[in-house]
Amino acid sequence: MNDERYVRGWAKLKEVDGQAGQNVIDGLKDIAPDFARLLIEFPFGDIYSRPGLDLRTRELAVVAALTAMGNAAPQLRVHIHGARNVGCTQQEIVEVIMQMAVYAGFPAALNGLFAAKEMFALEGPQ
Amino acid sequence: MNDERYVRGWAKLKEVDGQAGQNVIDGLKDIAPDFARLLIEFPFGDIYSRPGLDLRTRELAVVAALTAMGNAAPQLRVHIHGARNVGCTQQEIVEVIMQMAVYAGFPAALNGLFAAKEMFALEGPQ
Amino acid sequence: MNDERYVRGWAKLKEVDGQAGQNVIDGLKDIAPDFARLLIEFPFGDIYSRPGLDLRTRELAVVAALTAMGNAAPQLRVHIHGARNVGCTQQEIVEVIMQMAVYAGFPAALNGLFAAKEMFALEGPQ
Amino acid sequence: MNDERYVRGWAKLKEVDGQAGQNVIDGLKDIAPDFARLLIEFPFGDIYSRPGLDLRTRELAVVAALTAMGNAAPQLRVHIHGARNVGCTQQEIVEVIMQMAVYAGFPAALNGLFAAKEMFALEGPQ
Amino acid sequence: MNDERYVRGWAKLKEVDGQAGQNVIDGLKDIAPDFARLLIEFPFGDIYSRPGLDLRTRELAVVAALTAMGNAAPQLRVHIHGARNVGCTQQEIVEVIMQMAVYAGFPAALNGLFAAKEMFALEGPQ
Amino acid sequence: MNDERYVRGWAKLKEVDGQAGQNVIDGLKDIAPDFARLLIEFPFGDIYSRPGLDLRTRELAVVAALTAMGNAAPQLRVHIHGARNVGCTQQEIVEVIMQMAVYAGFPAALNGLFAAKEMFALEGPQ
Repeated sequence: MNDERYVRGWAKLKEVDGQAGQNVIDGLKDIAPDFARLLIEFPFGDIYSRPGLDLRTRELAVVAALTAMGNAAPQLRVHIHGARNVGCTQQEIVEVIMQMAVYAGFPAALNGLFAAKEMFALEGPQ
Repeated sequence: MNDERYVRGWAKLKEVDGQAGQNVIDGLKDIAPDFARLLIEFPFGDIYSRPGLDLRTRELAVVAALTAMGNAAPQLRVHIHGARNVGCTQQEIVEVIMQMAVYAGFPAALNGLFAAKEMFALEGPQ
Repeated sequence: MNDERYVRGWAKLKEVDGQAGQNVIDGLKDIAPDFARLLIEFPFGDIYSRPGLDLRTRELAVVAALTAMGNAAPQLRVHIHGARNVGCTQQEIVEVIMQMAVYAGFPAALNGLFAAKEMFALEGPQ
Repeated sequence: MNDERYVRGWAKLKEVDGQAGQNVIDGLKDIAPDFARLLIEFPFGDIYSRPGLDLRTRELAVVAALTAMGNAAPQLRVHIHGARNVGCTQQEIVEVIMQMAVYAGFPAALNGLFAAKEMFALEGPQ
Repeated sequence: MNDERYVRGWAKLKEVDGQAGQNVIDGLKDIAPDFARLLIEFPFGDIYSRPGLDLRTRELAVVAALTAMGNAAPQLRVHIHGARNVGCTQQEIVEVIMQMAVYAGFPAALNGLFAAKEMFALEGPQ
Repeated sequence: MNDERYVRGWAKLKEVDGQAGQNVIDGLKDIAPDFARLLIEFPFGDIYSRPGLDLRTRELAVVAALTAMGNAAPQLRVHIHGARNVGCTQQEIVEVIMQMAVYAGFPAALNGLFAAKEMFALEGPQ
């Protein structure tokens, strides 16, 4: 057992988005419970926990990548929310998505912006 | 003519990577000279020049996206170099590429790391 | 301000699909109003307005590309409709989507055909 | 007419998933009936019918590929069901999807696992 | 044997690019000779031979799609050449590639333009 | 330290392709040595080592996915070789790649077949 990685991973996942993390873990329970453990251990225990890049930049980079790939809508929404949780402004998120128009085209950027609009709406009036 | 956007775009492109920019512009001369102008005006004049996100974060986001997409090797190299030009550390670039293993898989991250290795080697010993 | 590009872009966007364009612009209003302007200026003011390729072929090429990419369903629907607006026949659209089975696989082509079926149904009986 | 390929294709399609196949064929009837014929003839009459690789491995390979591509959700669901029909265990399907986390990232694998969960639920309690 | 499709396919393939077709067929000889037959029969015998869309538009649509996908460089070069063979102008090809900047990003369009430059150079001075 | 995962991962990596694995590890040494460790621990220590799917099927699934994605040529070659190392026949590999023509298009399958041809040639005459 790699309890240290698991504990470190959960702590980091909670910083990013504990509720969304819990929902995914719950959703995996009766299909692939081991994958829930791996999800906590590798992405959050191994990668997100590394020094050398702050959590805000990590989340903006993930929002950029998922916007550009355009085939992972649920995860894009989670990480737009995660970016907010770790302190990114709405403007920073919008800017990073807009920039993807240059690298992955306008449809990718538009779908990213509409995902951001949806997630920001859940925050209520600013 | 949108000279203002063009001038602003060239200035921004020079901040990111003037030499690579010039090479691309030269390469387009006898195939699509208008595209060279559009490349300066829209990505650099319109997008990169916007406030609300610093140039370092913009470049790290682009490195993330191009690593994840995995189908734009020449542009990934240019932006790894561009990230360095605007002040990103080698470590920050390596971290953002490693993180793509989580979102786009290990092959994407490996190919990104080898591109970074190639570009860092051009800098000579640190 | 680049009013000339904006005006030219809106005119061109209206030729392709004014209603869908307006919906997108409206949707962007409270998340990224600047992106609405960029969307009119660059794709429609700069690219679609160029001579050298007629609007029908431009729209069929876009339907082909979005079908092949398979990750931009809302934009595919808009451009299937846009292709009809600029004079493409239903048969031409179906043929270009079917051809994508060769280049991007049968799932991409099937999803494209079902998008076309949905959009053609909105036209009512022919 | 290539009736031999068509007959062979339908027989193979029925082995994989006759009901889903029929639904797709029906759905194509008023948009692209020829494509329904091509879908039976080439993928199922020409490719699936070849010797040298058993049907179980073919279906697991398709589940792997569609999970990794991440842009063909309806077809992924059909082939998760098809893999079950030709004798793959739920565990084999889950393993092949989990493995895609390595090659295409965690979002692709998660979306694949949730598709599997949905399809397995239709089977009722095991 | 589907000799009719094969004969029709070869005739169509020769219209598009007989030499490139022959090279691919030869290259497949000792790895997958059956695939050479399938390549002639399905894409060229079944799809390209259909009425309802002229060969020029088919080739421009393929150039658009392969530029946008960005992961099939050899085939993009073949179809840029094929587009020329069936009567597309250099300008039409350049325009359709430039348009992909909007839908798949600037890197995809740039890599497409450089492929076109390479293929046009083989034609010698115009 | 997770020495158990590391040891188990290296053993599994050696089964798949010890030499290619070592080359990648060496290549990462001066750019991202930690990533070499993660590459052994997560993909090989955590995923490949799981029961429930034999190594031959795992490798064929990876060949399928990398062929379909079309943007990871070096890794596709490694896993074609890996598939051979764990006992897959050349015919099985060719069949799984050919099948990708259906799901990801002919260019993806062709590029996969040519990669297989290259890797099989290194084995010398059979």
